[in-house]
Amino acid sequence: MRGVVFADRGRVEVRTLPEPTLQAPTDALVKVLWSAVCGTDLHVLQSGVGMLPGTVLGHEFVGDILEVGAHVTTLRPGDRVLGSDFTACGRCWHCRRQEHWECPQRHFFGTGTAFGPELAGTQAELVRVPHAETVLGRLPEDCPAEAAIFACDTLATGLSAAERGEVAAGDVVAIVGGGAVGQMTSLACQVLGAAAVVVVDPIEERRRLATCGGAIATGPETARQLLEDLTEGRGADVVVEAVGGPRPLESALGLVRKRGTVVSVGVHSEPEFCLPAARAFSDELSLKFVVGDPIAVRDRLLPLLTVGLIDPSPIVSERVPLEDAPGAYERFSRRQAVKILLQVGTGA
Amino acid sequence: MRGVVFADRGRVEVRTLPEPTLQAPTDALVKVLWSAVCGTDLHVLQSGVGMLPGTVLGHEFVGDILEVGAHVTTLRPGDRVLGSDFTACGRCWHCRRQEHWECPQRHFFGTGTAFGPELAGTQAELVRVPHAETVLGRLPEDCPAEAAIFACDTLATGLSAAERGEVAAGDVVAIVGGGAVGQMTSLACQVLGAAAVVVVDPIEERRRLATCGGAIATGPETARQLLEDLTEGRGADVVVEAVGGPRPLESALGLVRKRGTVVSVGVHSEPEFCLPAARAFSDELSLKFVVGDPIAVRDRLLPLLTVGLIDPSPIVSERVPLEDAPGAYERFSRRQAVKILLQVGTGA
Amino acid sequence: MRGVVFADRGRVEVRTLPEPTLQAPTDALVKVLWSAVCGTDLHVLQSGVGMLPGTVLGHEFVGDILEVGAHVTTLRPGDRVLGSDFTACGRCWHCRRQEHWECPQRHFFGTGTAFGPELAGTQAELVRVPHAETVLGRLPEDCPAEAAIFACDTLATGLSAAERGEVAAGDVVAIVGGGAVGQMTSLACQVLGAAAVVVVDPIEERRRLATCGGAIATGPETARQLLEDLTEGRGADVVVEAVGGPRPLESALGLVRKRGTVVSVGVHSEPEFCLPAARAFSDELSLKFVVGDPIAVRDRLLPLLTVGLIDPSPIVSERVPLEDAPGAYERFSRRQAVKILLQVGTGA
Amino acid sequence: MRGVVFADRGRVEVRTLPEPTLQAPTDALVKVLWSAVCGTDLHVLQSGVGMLPGTVLGHEFVGDILEVGAHVTTLRPGDRVLGSDFTACGRCWHCRRQEHWECPQRHFFGTGTAFGPELAGTQAELVRVPHAETVLGRLPEDCPAEAAIFACDTLATGLSAAERGEVAAGDVVAIVGGGAVGQMTSLACQVLGAAAVVVVDPIEERRRLATCGGAIATGPETARQLLEDLTEGRGADVVVEAVGGPRPLESALGLVRKRGTVVSVGVHSEPEFCLPAARAFSDELSLKFVVGDPIAVRDRLLPLLTVGLIDPSPIVSERVPLEDAPGAYERFSRRQAVKILLQVGTGA
Repeated sequence: MRGVVFADRGRVEVRTLPEPTLQAPTDALVKVLWSAVCGTDLHVLQSGVGMLPGTVLGHEFVGDILEVGAHVTTLRPGDRVLGSDFTACGRCWHCRRQEHWECPQRHFFGTGTAFGPELAGTQAELVRVPHAETVLGRLPEDCPAEAAIFACDTLATGLSAAERGEVAAGDVVAIVGGGAVGQMTSLACQVLGAAAVVVVDPIEERRRLATCGGAIATGPETARQLLEDLTEGRGADVVVEAVGGPRPLESALGLVRKRGTVVSVGVHSEPEFCLPAARAFSDELSLKFVVGDPIAVRDRLLPLLTVGLIDPSPIVSERVPLEDAPGAYERFSRRQAVKILLQVGTGA
Repeated sequence: MRGVVFADRGRVEVRTLPEPTLQAPTDALVKVLWSAVCGTDLHVLQSGVGMLPGTVLGHEFVGDILEVGAHVTTLRPGDRVLGSDFTACGRCWHCRRQEHWECPQRHFFGTGTAFGPELAGTQAELVRVPHAETVLGRLPEDCPAEAAIFACDTLATGLSAAERGEVAAGDVVAIVGGGAVGQMTSLACQVLGAAAVVVVDPIEERRRLATCGGAIATGPETARQLLEDLTEGRGADVVVEAVGGPRPLESALGLVRKRGTVVSVGVHSEPEFCLPAARAFSDELSLKFVVGDPIAVRDRLLPLLTVGLIDPSPIVSERVPLEDAPGAYERFSRRQAVKILLQVGTGA
Repeated sequence: MRGVVFADRGRVEVRTLPEPTLQAPTDALVKVLWSAVCGTDLHVLQSGVGMLPGTVLGHEFVGDILEVGAHVTTLRPGDRVLGSDFTACGRCWHCRRQEHWECPQRHFFGTGTAFGPELAGTQAELVRVPHAETVLGRLPEDCPAEAAIFACDTLATGLSAAERGEVAAGDVVAIVGGGAVGQMTSLACQVLGAAAVVVVDPIEERRRLATCGGAIATGPETARQLLEDLTEGRGADVVVEAVGGPRPLESALGLVRKRGTVVSVGVHSEPEFCLPAARAFSDELSLKFVVGDPIAVRDRLLPLLTVGLIDPSPIVSERVPLEDAPGAYERFSRRQAVKILLQVGTGA
Repeated sequence: MRGVVFADRGRVEVRTLPEPTLQAPTDALVKVLWSAVCGTDLHVLQSGVGMLPGTVLGHEFVGDILEVGAHVTTLRPGDRVLGSDFTACGRCWHCRRQEHWECPQRHFFGTGTAFGPELAGTQAELVRVPHAETVLGRLPEDCPAEAAIFACDTLATGLSAAERGEVAAGDVVAIVGGGAVGQMTSLACQVLGAAAVVVVDPIEERRRLATCGGAIATGPETARQLLEDLTEGRGADVVVEAVGGPRPLESALGLVRKRGTVVSVGVHSEPEFCLPAARAFSDELSLKFVVGDPIAVRDRLLPLLTVGLIDPSPIVSERVPLEDAPGAYERFSRRQAVKILLQVGTGA
């Protein structure tokens, strides 16, 4: 089969690879229809941390079941399914609490050993999915595959952030970062009844997309004032930091109102962050680090995607065949694209 | 001053009345700008229960503060305010829990003694408002008065119903009854993230309005099937009964899924309702009777009305001067209008 | 193996029966250590509805895994486990929402076809458990088997009732009925921080047990007054009806305060219940029918049972060997016992 | 009148002072019965920051209403009341959301200008209470004054911490610091259904008190292991940091499980805290800074204090007359006492 692999730091190749096979009776093999390129792919590609040459990339996918292991009874060959960027057993203490990221059997697709034990990625014609009954969701009949793929990661992260931040009707929300996750978080917050969502990004194209998607967009220097104007001077009820690293988190803390909540969904690899403790205390702030949980939020997202109340399609910059992945990655790395979909197959 | 009064069962008159004066130091006098005609007005008008001739009608209003009692410090003459259909002290055990309807000092405007001790209504040039700091809310600067008036009762009821029914992202909601409350409940449920809202009403015009407002509309005989199609056969997650009386409540119970919730916001004056107990038990149903609470939900509604994310205006059938109230009531009673706004003054 | 079977309406026998075997790869066979006799056993025994002679009775059990089907990987022979009174698949839409009672694959142990398709009961030396990974829970090391057995049904029902009724710190709760479920509900409500739990029962021994268990006990005629004294005249915040049928539900509605919640966990087989609609509306009551969900609440109950913060043992009237089941059932039917444990085996 | 004043850094005196008078129509004058000495008193006494010589100390009090301003209608002379450590208007946007600490009209009793504008303290025979209807609560008839005084600050902080940390039935909670707030937090967490509360403190007497109060007590070096033993290796579900400053917060983060919550109620005056960002992200931690809110939680605490389900009395080291305050402060500063009550009067 053909698949996109990590060739070297910063360089991907499309190669012919051996086909995966079922390894456990809870596995399924999925014939991939669409896979997407995500900021996390770029991150591991560029850092190379935990990546061996030949690692198949990607963790977002929609496809059709090709084969299932002996224990898989709720899915059948031919079922159209969407994935989750990481796996979970569905049985352990954490899984029973819907804390799938903490499952000891978690594997993250296509990121080498960056987030745990290795699992081949999804930018390939076939993908092996462990714990398939938990990890895969069945697509509702009328749900477009190109919309559902967002529920595998970025949109799931957006809704996880919005829910953990307890975004409620009438709230004013700020989102630091207008990349794919920021854009999807904007849609999720609007669905939960936010009166205004302000997306903060220095890049004009991302601001345009945010506006397109129903948010108010602004640059970093004008964000605080804008939020104060919207809230009688208080600041945002909830701020979602969707970039990662210390600077954006610092910005997020600067936008939140007293007694407000900052949700950080950006990746943090720096060992320490200088939290303004005295202010956090006197203003009673909450800070929550959240990893998106596609398995937990899928049942709420799919009906909204099916009827089009959430429409992620405007942020799709390109739809390209799998073979064009190298160019797509390059444009993505130059920020010429917010979201790229790779068409891998044509379905069962 | 001029005001709309109950003349006789089924008949209103516009009369010249003595102006109200402050009676307690927590009172305020409001110069009314808009008042609205509501199903409850019609209900007490037609039943005549608890109504003495000369009772000023109405309980929805937006206006400007004219005068405040000595204890009122957070409102000033000239402030533009919206009301609540009933009053509450803001201090007692129930008020502290945001259960304002249960406040022992509750008075319902303009309904005689139907819901407690009498309090002159708001379809008049001036209205006296007890416990003004609790009962009145200040209008945000850009919030249109004609939108805000819905937060005095019907839209507040809609959001109260949706919140008590715990409508959540992705839910399928059914609303029995497409009158003003049903229409406003539809808007509220959409704001909370419902994937589909089905408004059930036999009257075509109401179905048209519901569709206009983003819902799916259907007649009673097709509702169950439609809901099953939307939910893989389960039925609605939440059903709001917005008519009152046993039949609509029975219909609502027929639409809800196993483990679902029926919220009844329609008035029930029948002593008994035959609840299908065996089914309610085996399907683990919840049934909640809810009276809308404008005081409790106002802070969430006003930002949404200000930005237009909730737009009640399509259901306004007519805007007429106060003097035309008799004709308006007549058309309303013939169901030729869903919502009528009475223009009482032109503001301070 | 030996087991307790339904011989005829009102009569049980201990018989030698064929041993069950694994029927599906998700099954487990459990060697039963303790099984308990429950009001539901008595109910089906006396009504005989859906019961064929020879049906093994019982649905509460603790035991050791003897054998597991091929798909069961999280449980091993020798593991000490507790059950759930009914089964659920753990995978479907309802199970994913923790609404296990609504699972289309639900089977209720030992009640013939009263609550769905038949499944042999647990008052026997061996029991076959479908969907074992979902239905069974592993006992924490220090958790006494005789305490854990309550988490299979009655105590799980108590906590389900308390949680669905949203019992909160400082609440005053009333419980109609001091049988095993009522007593367990009392313990659960106390764990959630109720300031007072009033158990209402006409039988003195049950009142004694309730007092023993930390509740206030009273007869039906004095309950309302007592609750008013405890709540400045308001009535109970939450009332749990733990008997079933119309009378107790009526009593429960008579004890609840305005805006309060009645949770009914008693069985209702009557087709209709005359709900006082006008009062329910004007007092904004909530009424929830709840079936206890051992699978959903087990992870919260087991730590509390292990440390003894919940101690159900005082309500155990007798511990008898399996062979004495006929006498035990007889004493139970004469209300000479609140809870009887049958010692079936001595563990692996 | 006699009162305890800040004489100089680290030194208090009991002086004869001018009696306070009503200054606003929403004020009340309270004849103090008991006032307590709190860690915050010691903190401002020793730092002297914002304290002018002559400042009356103290912020916890129970007493009887002596006189009320013209706008105060729900309280009367002779009513026995408890206070809150800080005031709030009860009307503003934050107060309506039960975020009283953020009220722009907040004053903190007896701490000079350390937490906002000055307000004379409560360790005096008379205290003026602004916004009396919001700030004061009426004591239930049978509620002991010496128990209720804990609801003015430390126990209210404990319940605020437990609620904001979402402590739930079956949780394992750790509390860093066994001072008065830590001890009260232990009681609050037990009331909410924690299966185990582990109080971590190096001082033996505090560990003894914690054990007395139903917790498990341990020193800092053994805490992690103990928590792992209680949670199958996971760590505490919720950790409450009840000391203040960076070290205890660091310890708290070391005890919490993946996806757990740290609530910090200790005072933080350091500008920055080095948060372990990479771990916080990969373990999805939540960190909430919480200031206790007596006004918000009082209605839940008083019933529990009245029936004795929460009994703070074991931590009262001494009850001394007001005149002995200097000695009491000295013993408190040497950590020879955990909580000291000053008997100021004998009630109305």
